[in-house]
Order: sequence, then structure tokens, then C-alpha cells
Amino acid sequence: MRETTHHPAADAVHPITATVLATLSGCTDTRLKEIMTALVKHVHAFAEEVQLTGDEWRRGIEFLTQTGKKCDGIRQEFILLSDTLGLSIMLDAIHRRDDVTETAATENSLLGPFYREGAHEEAFGANIARTEGEPALFRGRLVDEAGQPVPNALIEVWETANNGMYEGQDPDQPESNLRGKFRTGPDGEYAFRSIKPTPYPIPTDGPVGQMLLALGRHPMRPAHVHFLIQAPGYDTLTTALFSADDPYVESDAVFGVKPSLVVDYVRNGSAADAKAWDLPNPFFDVQRDFVLARSQGAAR
Amino acid sequence: MRETTHHPAADAVHPITATVLATLSGCTDTRLKEIMTALVKHVHAFAEEVQLTGDEWRRGIEFLTQTGKKCDGIRQEFILLSDTLGLSIMLDAIHRRDDVTETAATENSLLGPFYREGAHEEAFGANIARTEGEPALFRGRLVDEAGQPVPNALIEVWETANNGMYEGQDPDQPESNLRGKFRTGPDGEYAFRSIKPTPYPIPTDGPVGQMLLALGRHPMRPAHVHFLIQAPGYDTLTTALFSADDPYVESDAVFGVKPSLVVDYVRNGSAADAKAWDLPNPFFDVQRDFVLARSQGAAR
Repeated sequence: MRETTHHPAADAVHPITATVLATLSGCTDTRLKEIMTALVKHVHAFAEEVQLTGDEWRRGIEFLTQTGKKCDGIRQEFILLSDTLGLSIMLDAIHRRDDVTETAATENSLLGPFYREGAHEEAFGANIARTEGEPALFRGRLVDEAGQPVPNALIEVWETANNGMYEGQDPDQPESNLRGKFRTGPDGEYAFRSIKPTPYPIPTDGPVGQMLLALGRHPMRPAHVHFLIQAPGYDTLTTALFSADDPYVESDAVFGVKPSLVVDYVRNGSAADAKAWDLPNPFFDVQRDFVLARSQGAAR
Repeated sequence: MRETTHHPAADAVHPITATVLATLSGCTDTRLKEIMTALVKHVHAFAEEVQLTGDEWRRGIEFLTQTGKKCDGIRQEFILLSDTLGLSIMLDAIHRRDDVTETAATENSLLGPFYREGAHEEAFGANIARTEGEPALFRGRLVDEAGQPVPNALIEVWETANNGMYEGQDPDQPESNLRGKFRTGPDGEYAFRSIKPTPYPIPTDGPVGQMLLALGRHPMRPAHVHFLIQAPGYDTLTTALFSADDPYVESDAVFGVKPSLVVDYVRNGSAADAKAWDLPNPFFDVQRDFVLARSQGAAR
């Protein structure tokens, strides 16, 4: 666990900063006051550090304005900005560090903007691919931190089709393509058939896409399958499995990859397995267990 | 002149911050790279310092989104945010410190969002008040830093009517009410008649107004008259004169007041002056000179 960095010199603020901070003295919401005090200090220190000019800030204001205007019921460009600047994963790290250090629980990753509620519950081993791709079997067990099975939990999965789009983004995909819910069995076991995922770009037709271009950064996310795992008495786990052989696995545009979440797509050439799972020979076989943490305050 | 604060400890960044900064290595725009490096460091350090939660940041994202959506051709809510957080005046201070330290030139203030181009040029001493108010005479000289007159310069002025609105905001005000351009005479002299300004709130019907309310801050600007002064060979001066007796002169919502820009509205009881200027007796008499700085690189 890393200590919070403290900057003693940061208390020596510019006189204008001190004037602005003094206006917060009447704020009765102590948490809001704490947040705004730090925000004002950092915004002012940033401006002074880079000697930001009026013209540069006008471009910044135009960027923020266009980012707001790009948002609608489906698209959230400020989340994209937060993701691409690493702030979203930073909050995840800060929060996670607080309540589960030294845990065996599976690490989490970003939920992302493409999660859709209302997925169908499918039978053990069902195939959720309704479009083409390289067939893959995902299987393993859901256990607690002591290694005991967690039966009857819900494992929800979603991934993009080969065209790099989620079903919810793409009117040409069949309903419920590449997403579904699976219930773990008595020994915590789960299995589903799908396809090996492909890398895809985050939306680049807005201000954040222009920013990445100006910064010389690519917009790609490495191929991954999302998992949202819920069981009574356990912390909900939002995570994803990333493909080890993906060209972008070391450079995710939104910094969601953690080494423990990178998996191999192993080529399984067993004729018996192919027949048992009704898959071509060979197929990709991803064997992966997940570990849930008990909720704080839950009975043990 | 104040030294730029440097925080050696700020180089010890969080591992996630270091990962994000590494993605900027391909940015060929060195200034953009410098700005974004500092921005990412400060945004991450802010989040860590206050241990920002996901829920709090979702509220922040919603605030930024609504701020963007509030912007249109007339209203610029992000400028209002920048003004109320003291960033606009901070940039002014940073920039001004760079090129004119130890100067005799009149200090500047914020242009504000209500400047309109195309004001009429009026005769020396003309009255620009077409709505009611307490009559005031503004007069003085425009000089350079050596005290020599600057003739034939353009002094543009604008202020709110007694209802707290600028002509451009208020369809009920006559065209060109309380704004106009004046040309300085051979000895740098200027004069115009108008009214004593009144304090007014910045727009409070958007996210920034809600923010001020939550922070326990009032939205008022102290009464002021804007001045935009232009002459060939001199730096353009954007400034304002604030009323010394205003209840908000020490707590301007956008931090635009500088002590040197606060003026007294002196009651002038001279019957001769009242007659000469065609004003009631008494009237407010504001006598104030302005000092322009020569443009860098201009002939001396």
C-alpha cells in the first residue's frame, strides 16, 4: 500500500488563490469545502506552473464546451475524457486500496459505457455468439477468498462483435448478441461459448478523439470480455479479461488492463472436447476462476 | 514579483499517473505536451489528496456536462466557472507579471462577457444614459508612463442600467444605452456623462449559480464601469472602475477588483459645473486618469 504523497510547499499559495479560498469559509458542507479547496489550489497551481496564457485557456474552454455538447443519453464524452486521462482508473485504485488491500479477490476493471441492463439468463455452456468469429469456450469456478465455491451467483458478460461494436451500438447485430447472464452451479462452476474478442477504438468523432490525435495517442482498447459478477453477501465484482496476444494489451487507451486480468486464449485440439461442447476443432479454451470478496459487515 | 512555487515532491507521482504520462511521449507539440503533463499530474494529485469517490466524480461529471449544455452563442458558462474559481484573474496576473512589472500603467481587469462591438463614437462629454439613474460625470486624461498625453485614442465604456442588466442582455433598454466610444482630445482629455453604476449578480440560473449557492458564496459583482482603451503604439488596456462605497467591493464574485481601480463617486455641488455639464446639482464627479503602456517593440 502506497502512502498518500503530501506536498508541504503546496500550502504556499498565490495571493489570488488565497483570496478565492477565503470565499469558501461560509461553506457548511465540509466535504464539498474540502474538495473545492483542493480543486482551486490545484487548478491555480497548474495554471501558474505552465504559465497558461489566455489564448490557451480559451481553447481549453472551447474544448470543455464541445465535450459537454457531445454528451447525450447514450454518449458521455466527459466519462471518455476521465477514462483517457486515467482519472477513472485512478479513482478505482484509490477506492480499492481503502477497503481491500492484501486480498485474494479478483481485481476489478472499468464497467465502461456499453453495459446494458436486462441481459437474458442463459443455460450453463450456452453460446451467446449470434455473429461470426473465432469460437471460444470460457469456463472456470467462482470461489470466495478461502477457495470455497460460490454457487447460484450471477455472472453477466458482454463483448464486441468482430466489427468492434457492442450490440447496443450497432443496429445490424441481432438482439442479445454477445451478451448474457449465467448462474453458477453447485460447485461454483460456470461456462459459456462465445468468440475471441477483437480490439476496438473508443469513439473518436468528438473532442476526446481530437485530443488523443493531438497527443499522438491511439484510441484502441485491447480485446476484452466484460464480467459483472453478483452474489448475495459478496462485493459485486466489475472486471474484464484481456487477451494476452493483443497488440494493445500494454497500451489500453483507458488504462483498464491489470496484469492479473490478462489471459491466454489456448488452442484446444481435443476432438472429445470439441464434440462435448459442440465447437469446431480446434477452439480457443479460456479457463479462469474468479474470486469474490465478502461484503464488509456480511455474516461470515 | 513572486517566484513561481516549485514542488519537488510533485515528481513522486502515483504509478497510474506515471503510466498516463508515458502515453504523452509521442506528442510532437511540445507546448501541448507540457500543459497536458502538468494537467494530468494535478488532476490525479487532486483526486488522491481528497480521496475522491466514484459517486463524487459522477456528480462532477454531471456538473461539467450541464455546464457545457448551458453554453450557447450568448451564454458561456465555462467562462463563468473560470471567473468564479478565480482562474481568469489568475491568468491575468500570470500574464501581466511577465511583460509589465514595475510599471506605472493602469492595472487591468476582466473584459467580462457583456462587451459588445460596434458602439457609437460620441462627442466629448456626451451623455450615454438613456435610462434613469444617479447622474455622474466621468473625466480625466489619458497619458503614457512618462505622463505625456495620448491624444486621439479610443476609450470605450459600458455599464449596467439600474436593473443590473447590460443593454445587450435586456431587450427593454434603448439601443446603445450606457455604452459608447470617446476619442481623447489634444491633451489626452476625455469626459462623458452617465449614471453611477449599481452592483449586479452574475447569471445564477445555471450550474455555476448552483455551485455558488452550495459553497455559501454570493453571486454579486460590485458596481463598476468597464473601460477598453486603444491607441496605436500602446498596449490595449481592458479595465474597470469600481465604486468605493459598494457593499461588494471587497467580495467580487469573479475577483476582478484591484485596489488601484476603486474610485470615489464625489458629490459635486458646484452650480457652475452643473450648468457647464448640463447636469443636476449636485452630481457625482469621478475624476480619473488612465496610463497606457507602450507596446513592446513599438517606436519610442
